[in-house]
Amino acid sequence: MSSLIQPQTLKGFRDSLPEQEIKRRDLMSKLEEGFRQFGYEPIDTPALEYEEILLGKGGGETEKQVYRFEDHGGRRVALRYDLTVPLARFTAQHREQLPLPFKRYHMAKVWRGENPQKGRYREFYQCDFDIVGAEGPDSDAEILVMMAHSMHLLGAKVHIKLSHRQILPNFLNTVGHTEQQLDILRLIDKKDKISADEFDQQLAFLLKPSARERLSHLLSPTKSWEEALSRLSVLDQAASPIHQRLSEILERLRLSGLEAMVQLDFSITRGLDYYTGVVFETFLDALPSLGSVCSGGRYDNLAQLYTKERLPGVGASVGLDRLLAGLEEQGLTLGSARCTDVAVFNAEQGTTVLSWKVAQALRHKGFKTDLFTETKKTAQQYAYAEKKRIPIVVIPKSESQFQIKYLPSGQMENRSNIDEVVQQIRTWLSA
Amino acid sequence: MSSLIQPQTLKGFRDSLPEQEIKRRDLMSKLEEGFRQFGYEPIDTPALEYEEILLGKGGGETEKQVYRFEDHGGRRVALRYDLTVPLARFTAQHREQLPLPFKRYHMAKVWRGENPQKGRYREFYQCDFDIVGAEGPDSDAEILVMMAHSMHLLGAKVHIKLSHRQILPNFLNTVGHTEQQLDILRLIDKKDKISADEFDQQLAFLLKPSARERLSHLLSPTKSWEEALSRLSVLDQAASPIHQRLSEILERLRLSGLEAMVQLDFSITRGLDYYTGVVFETFLDALPSLGSVCSGGRYDNLAQLYTKERLPGVGASVGLDRLLAGLEEQGLTLGSARCTDVAVFNAEQGTTVLSWKVAQALRHKGFKTDLFTETKKTAQQYAYAEKKRIPIVVIPKSESQFQIKYLPSGQMENRSNIDEVVQQIRTWLSA
Repeated sequence: MSSLIQPQTLKGFRDSLPEQEIKRRDLMSKLEEGFRQFGYEPIDTPALEYEEILLGKGGGETEKQVYRFEDHGGRRVALRYDLTVPLARFTAQHREQLPLPFKRYHMAKVWRGENPQKGRYREFYQCDFDIVGAEGPDSDAEILVMMAHSMHLLGAKVHIKLSHRQILPNFLNTVGHTEQQLDILRLIDKKDKISADEFDQQLAFLLKPSARERLSHLLSPTKSWEEALSRLSVLDQAASPIHQRLSEILERLRLSGLEAMVQLDFSITRGLDYYTGVVFETFLDALPSLGSVCSGGRYDNLAQLYTKERLPGVGASVGLDRLLAGLEEQGLTLGSARCTDVAVFNAEQGTTVLSWKVAQALRHKGFKTDLFTETKKTAQQYAYAEKKRIPIVVIPKSESQFQIKYLPSGQMENRSNIDEVVQQIRTWLSA
Repeated sequence: MSSLIQPQTLKGFRDSLPEQEIKRRDLMSKLEEGFRQFGYEPIDTPALEYEEILLGKGGGETEKQVYRFEDHGGRRVALRYDLTVPLARFTAQHREQLPLPFKRYHMAKVWRGENPQKGRYREFYQCDFDIVGAEGPDSDAEILVMMAHSMHLLGAKVHIKLSHRQILPNFLNTVGHTEQQLDILRLIDKKDKISADEFDQQLAFLLKPSARERLSHLLSPTKSWEEALSRLSVLDQAASPIHQRLSEILERLRLSGLEAMVQLDFSITRGLDYYTGVVFETFLDALPSLGSVCSGGRYDNLAQLYTKERLPGVGASVGLDRLLAGLEEQGLTLGSARCTDVAVFNAEQGTTVLSWKVAQALRHKGFKTDLFTETKKTAQQYAYAEKKRIPIVVIPKSESQFQIKYLPSGQMENRSNIDEVVQQIRTWLSA
């Protein structure tokens, strides 16, 4: 035999083993269920696209991270690094066939060759949902309500921090700071990641004292939406449409019972270029330090690189890996972490028709049933069931003798026919 | 504005629009349901792997088709071109953590830079299921039964052609044809794709007349499994283990009620190198000319490139695109082609709180409900509902007046409260 190849994945890439993959699929299908309840439909796009299409919009940092190469036909191609650029291209390309507003979700892998660090990978799933071709406050509110609803389906308690992307620039203009706005916004963006002292210190370099005081008031916690909205009086005339828009959104959130879940927090900026209206971040109540598990906002014109038609919209992206980690840390098991209900053992001396018949009968009764197909000692068959997290084992001894065992408690029973076996399994599974 | 970039996908790559994507996801989740009923668990692997790992096994043709390049770190990497090689690497790498036999399914995209032709793409989904580390006839039979069961869940009527990979070489040895065996196997492999005359003509070049006659008898249709098995008497002593293995598998298929669905057909070869035991192909009863929608077989040693441990197994691969096309051609609609139940319209003059409340109430009642979020004429809102294949439209006129319409029949009704609206929707949806 020739020398072996070391089996390994690339740095920053991971396999997903069954236990993890079952949870991930369960998470995604629950989110999907939530999206569909609001009339959002799935799409898919190729992993590989023309480099020009994916990087048309890309900035310096993105461009460096994108996997790019020349294909067999000499075309410059790239692996998608997000789901937003493909959505823009998709919307422009299929515009005639799409309903407008276009409500879609997309859960798929993206690739970025950035340096892997804790919780960061070069291949990861994104889960985006957007309404494209929508201007009204209903669409802003709907994205928020749908997100809250999907988190609820997952059993996750969350709170949402909401702002409007024009508040801070408007404030800075009002207080006469038309320069260094990007630096100030960047600092505010990382407010929660540094200490209060550090924040104040750095802000002192960027903003004159009177403005600092007014900014501090604008960003300080409020008890109610009304109190937060009243702070907008610090802005100039342009504040009025912002005020009105937020009020309309909040009215709908109130109708949906999200009053306790959503807080206005004008320090939320969500990056610097992309968003133009409402912006938000979502945190697990139990683990706010994990960072936002779902963020998004309103943008002015999605597909301007590919079409002259103006397509404003609003959307969000779930951080699937982070959310999954957060749910697990809280001990929120995703429903189907147990994939299989019952393992049917084979005789030690080899496969038997009896085991086959028992496995089949249990499947007919609706149990997810795994037949052990090999010639192995019973101890090894138990190890197999345990490794697969299967709670119940059936050992057919004869047509009239069945040993059954409930692994979580170790309880062992004997039954003399399949119907009794079925009954006992039902009892254990419903425990 | 700078000049626009033409929105387009690469040659051989496709977008999946909602109507198609809903069907594909539905198909995949039904298959998944079938797999889980047999205790098979999902895994995932990276799209991108070390070139050496993916091509270790690759032959000339494969190698030419694989997307390969150098990544940012100077590593030679490649996009996976199937799910078998990644499974082999995965199994060797995680051997200690995996239960053996390892029953897994994997549904994911693969990439091949071959020349696109009708029904062939450079990016497509594969759906594989395997038992690795399994020698017994139970595992062979289980793969077949699970496949038949999954097709049944899809509402597809199929028949399976079954053979054993050693029959034909054994036959050729018996009749003294130890040379040109590969050419003869290749010819037999394409038997159904060429005319009978053409087959006979080409066979005449490869096989002496007496052997031709015996081969023709071996491959001719039979009425029963027993009749087919009796044909194996043409083989030498080595036929006995083949005969016994097929008998054991057939006994289990009979127990599972697959007698009418499975036929022995010794012309099935499934490629030339890979398989070593049972081999099979699956055809839609209504569209056999479409070709096999699920094929597979037993292999001797999955991961020999990466580990010294011998890992025999058996598995199959569903041709998802072909199967979906076949189901659609038969008019078998996949359950959820309708994604959304109800569209709630907005007032022409803009968004209203009333519509918001109605949409919310309908969602609480369990209807998948799409609120039209924009300011548009009612006619445009109807066009939207039709484009999304939504059957029912609700137009809230006031707190006590609701127009509802069933689009398939055009029937229009008026109701004076939400409860009556809900009742009418239930009636229409259950029609």
